[in-house]
Amino acid sequence: MKKAVVLVSGGLDSSTVLALAKEQGYACHALSFDYGQRHRCELAAARQVAAALGAVAHKTIRLDLGSIGGSALTDPAIAVPRTASEGIPVTYVPARNTVFLSLALAWAEVLEAGHIFIGVNAVDYSGYPDCRPEYIEACERMANLATRAAVEGRRLHIETPLIDLSKAEIIREGARLGVDYSMTVSCYDPDETGRACGACDACRLRAAGFAAAGLPDPTRYRAKAAE
Amino acid sequence: MKKAVVLVSGGLDSSTVLALAKEQGYACHALSFDYGQRHRCELAAARQVAAALGAVAHKTIRLDLGSIGGSALTDPAIAVPRTASEGIPVTYVPARNTVFLSLALAWAEVLEAGHIFIGVNAVDYSGYPDCRPEYIEACERMANLATRAAVEGRRLHIETPLIDLSKAEIIREGARLGVDYSMTVSCYDPDETGRACGACDACRLRAAGFAAAGLPDPTRYRAKAAE
Repeated sequence: MKKAVVLVSGGLDSSTVLALAKEQGYACHALSFDYGQRHRCELAAARQVAAALGAVAHKTIRLDLGSIGGSALTDPAIAVPRTASEGIPVTYVPARNTVFLSLALAWAEVLEAGHIFIGVNAVDYSGYPDCRPEYIEACERMANLATRAAVEGRRLHIETPLIDLSKAEIIREGARLGVDYSMTVSCYDPDETGRACGACDACRLRAAGFAAAGLPDPTRYRAKAAE
Repeated sequence: MKKAVVLVSGGLDSSTVLALAKEQGYACHALSFDYGQRHRCELAAARQVAAALGAVAHKTIRLDLGSIGGSALTDPAIAVPRTASEGIPVTYVPARNTVFLSLALAWAEVLEAGHIFIGVNAVDYSGYPDCRPEYIEACERMANLATRAAVEGRRLHIETPLIDLSKAEIIREGARLGVDYSMTVSCYDPDETGRACGACDACRLRAAGFAAAGLPDPTRYRAKAAE
């Protein structure tokens, strides 16, 4: 059975990626990071999702990106915006996908896995530089020079099955594969019980995606709970 | 003043790199990793070296590469070889330089530093794939697509001043710049007081380097201590 490392954050996109990798016949090794994120409750979601979608293993690596800071997601002093912004938003975490992919590469090497799946998307996304196809291509090229596998001629592929999909298309794919999106957390600033703010970038993209897909949005929102 | 992030392990090579970066006029931000390495005493050496060579800051990031394993340096069940081996040795840590460079990139982005220094060397080295010039070039290319700086047109340079030097040449450079190599730890398997084994790959390359440079070797060896 082909092995893959699948980056699973606990959000909507990466859960869909895990379901797609499973459908393609991979033995999926889910990888999450406890990196000092504000929305740490996504880690419980990642565990649930990995189990529900049949990952053969799930590892959560601790990594203090808070000590580097520079993002609303890792620095409590920077607020999560409640409105859309121009350019790269303050929720961008410096070099996050590079850090996550490098650790996925390390695990892939130990597992002798030839595939890393990541849920980057360049359509309905927040404008993060490390979600662009040209970045992923450069990363794959680097990965194929970095490791023992590279020297021995085994190729590493970075798989980005969502990269050209709209959020609605992602949700339809997940629905087709039986992903239970009520388990997932997308919000950047949920309350302590995991209820979404409904206003941040991630919430807005998610809600618009369910609306466009014509599917019910199972997200638990703070505002709805207060009604 | 130009800012640089300098990867400082506490070993001979990276200490020399820090001295070279300082000489070139950079405000040096030293970065070390507490990654589950067997030779964890190198971290105390890194602190000493960073202070002695005038780094403006020194950060040590905790990161559990032991949970990934696959190396004699992070898995206590794999012994450090006492003789030279063919091919990539078991002391190779999967994707280590990729992980370290990705975190250096994250810090560089927050600091708005345009330079990352790393002490990779492709002459007197252990045959690790992630020390080769073609790997570093691919990594720099990826870094220049990964970040806010990349989108805004600020270039990131990965500086490898040791890449073409022999170990003896590295030591002569350090001696010229006043690096106190007695502070540094190269051994992969030192005892609890930091004394070197004298037999592992790193010890043998280091000792041969001092001999070839015609300089006294200030390393504290276990065998010598037992005499």
